[in-house]
Amino acid sequence: MKPINVGLLGIGTVGGGTWTVLTRNAEEITRRAGRPISITTVADRDTARAESIVQGQAKVVGDAFAVARDPEIDIIVELIGGCTVAKDLVMTAIENGKHVVTANKALVATHGNEIFAAAQRKGVMVAFEAAVAGGIPIIKALREGLTANRIQWLAGIINGTTNFILSEMRDKGLPFDAVLKEAQALGYAEADPTFDIEGNDAAHKATIMASIAFGVPMQYERAHIEGITKLQAADIAYAEQMGYRIKLLGIARMREDGVELRVHPTLIPARCLLANVEGAMNAVLVQGDAVGATLYYGKGAGDEPTASAVIADLVDVTRMHTADPEHRVPHLAFQPDQLVDLKVLPVSETRCGYYMRLRVDDKPGVLADITRILADNDISIDAMIQKEPAEGASQADIILLTHETVEKQADAAVAKIEALSVVSAPVTRLRIEQLDR
Amino acid sequence: MKPINVGLLGIGTVGGGTWTVLTRNAEEITRRAGRPISITTVADRDTARAESIVQGQAKVVGDAFAVARDPEIDIIVELIGGCTVAKDLVMTAIENGKHVVTANKALVATHGNEIFAAAQRKGVMVAFEAAVAGGIPIIKALREGLTANRIQWLAGIINGTTNFILSEMRDKGLPFDAVLKEAQALGYAEADPTFDIEGNDAAHKATIMASIAFGVPMQYERAHIEGITKLQAADIAYAEQMGYRIKLLGIARMREDGVELRVHPTLIPARCLLANVEGAMNAVLVQGDAVGATLYYGKGAGDEPTASAVIADLVDVTRMHTADPEHRVPHLAFQPDQLVDLKVLPVSETRCGYYMRLRVDDKPGVLADITRILADNDISIDAMIQKEPAEGASQADIILLTHETVEKQADAAVAKIEALSVVSAPVTRLRIEQLDR
Repeated sequence: MKPINVGLLGIGTVGGGTWTVLTRNAEEITRRAGRPISITTVADRDTARAESIVQGQAKVVGDAFAVARDPEIDIIVELIGGCTVAKDLVMTAIENGKHVVTANKALVATHGNEIFAAAQRKGVMVAFEAAVAGGIPIIKALREGLTANRIQWLAGIINGTTNFILSEMRDKGLPFDAVLKEAQALGYAEADPTFDIEGNDAAHKATIMASIAFGVPMQYERAHIEGITKLQAADIAYAEQMGYRIKLLGIARMREDGVELRVHPTLIPARCLLANVEGAMNAVLVQGDAVGATLYYGKGAGDEPTASAVIADLVDVTRMHTADPEHRVPHLAFQPDQLVDLKVLPVSETRCGYYMRLRVDDKPGVLADITRILADNDISIDAMIQKEPAEGASQADIILLTHETVEKQADAAVAKIEALSVVSAPVTRLRIEQLDR
Repeated sequence: MKPINVGLLGIGTVGGGTWTVLTRNAEEITRRAGRPISITTVADRDTARAESIVQGQAKVVGDAFAVARDPEIDIIVELIGGCTVAKDLVMTAIENGKHVVTANKALVATHGNEIFAAAQRKGVMVAFEAAVAGGIPIIKALREGLTANRIQWLAGIINGTTNFILSEMRDKGLPFDAVLKEAQALGYAEADPTFDIEGNDAAHKATIMASIAFGVPMQYERAHIEGITKLQAADIAYAEQMGYRIKLLGIARMREDGVELRVHPTLIPARCLLANVEGAMNAVLVQGDAVGATLYYGKGAGDEPTASAVIADLVDVTRMHTADPEHRVPHLAFQPDQLVDLKVLPVSETRCGYYMRLRVDDKPGVLADITRILADNDISIDAMIQKEPAEGASQADIILLTHETVEKQADAAVAKIEALSVVSAPVTRLRIEQLDR
């Protein structure tokens, strides 16, 4: 059968992995897809690097736009990244009637609504399994595997860099800065790690998952994003003593009044599977009303794991590309005219439990003042530990875990607690998710 | 848009769940599928029970064959179970040009080759996500999510009854018989639990997964099947001391010379996620050459979790049923003419590590005799503990863990060890999987 012709835009880490796996497993992939999938053209600014990888087995060009317009090409694989040139290339490919496979989470999360609308008009597919959690087929699970369910919430460890850092901070009791340096030395963090450690990367992925889980447009600009740079080793240790681990989670929750969409360090029960996802691994826990909780685990990054998702999309598109669009899985799981315009709620409306660490004077009556403030704000206490002051010190740590409350109530209580004269430092406040409802 | 008409055969636990979820989430499901999915006819021998569930919202009949032939019906959902009437019904539906969705693992594992061939001839789909691991979309992951990979092996906790029993035996140190009774009282084990506790149910599921992972025909009759009825609480405790947990795993491994397909109690490292899948939960770990290890976790049984998989199949078939067959995902992941006739190997060719528990006389030289026998059979020892004899006793337990070897070598060594005069009881021999290669 006639091969399907693929134009690969960008042959860096993931592009190289895609080339390698598609070549190595060509026979297996053809047996599944029903026809060969062939990368006929590679575009990369570094044509010498590209030539050294493809070894004459594909045409190498410097101009990616020429590939996006090439009538011989059936599918464009966009692995350039970013939202400027990559967006123009994807839109050009769509306008030229080509299907697109992309690993570009920033692009899908911030321009997805426009891109999918254009794809819909032109009757082409834009596939993006590789944009979330690398090789884990989580997009397929959400979009096709769980179609029976009202998806209630999902929570994912979807950034390997930060999960590696948090695992190391816990194992070794080291501060963030020291572990970040180690992660950079080991190649788990980039030279400029901002997008990972500040939570933007996880927020891109959470945005995409929320959209297909709930049938709402992409709303990255409304996501609440907190990274791990301010996290203290002390809080990781205290959480552990209370039966919790701290993970950077991407969380999306469907509520009657809107959608919660947030990325932040989160205390979760140490016994649950998600808490035991260590190092650079990824995992997503999804709660559906019929199926209950399901979890998907694997490598969230790297050349071949990400290539695995890119090629799975290529096989899907190959199987479907001559079928009429009504037979295809909708880009965002729901039919395009069936998305609902449910808004992401402000983070002050979040409902969850809270961890609070207070540095207080070691005097009688302090605890009574604090618990009174919490009670006045309708916040009930789930657990508490009070640390003796260190030898010779006059101040002690109190750690409180609250039951679920609304964030603005928690913040109001924190402000009042900080105003107490016996409280000598800002309160450290972290969110808790029990992952059981 | 015109609804798709479904005939539901059997409205017991899963059938009832399917009815409930399809009714409750009708709006959500229609928004995804692009058209309503409507159960128009229910066939059940107990028509009164069926009437009480559907409350006049569907036609109820006693004759399932009439539904399988009804020209108004587009898709048959077979939830009767077993391989006699169910098989005839599925074949009748196929002959009448209907698509089939089934949760029947025994039917797919033992008659799948014939059924898929018939479906292929008639150009209809037979979908079976619900046959393996309940609501976990593992068939979709293997068949579509991991198409880039040479799948090397998979190992799954795919029977909730036995996993519940093993979790309880470990937690409470109780013997098998006592926990089985508890499981029956709690509804986790059936009145006749044979198919679960002897491993047949897990073997059906492992057979199906092996077929779609490796592109080989179903070979249930060649699977090696051992249940958990002979497992001793002592071995669970010894395994724990050595850093392992015992799980009933369904294992499939692709080798150059054939396929390993086996179900048996297995020691796995206590730290790995699979070892921490407790109670009636299911999980499948899949190793692909590009993606590495991915894990899929959730409820493996129950009315609504299984209905979740049945309905996901209904949505898939609804999206695809008017497309020509070449655009569909092949039943067994690989194109029908691309299956390879790779045989399941005899269990004596299995390669894994072994746990051996020996009851020996507490005399000098015993250990030397035993280790000599292992060395003579090219078996190297990974770890060992020797228990002091109980107060006043003259015999002690030795527990050995071996590195990977071929099963026939392990068995030869065991036979020689049992022939030693100082060894006073049959050797308990269990398999170990490190799950890391």
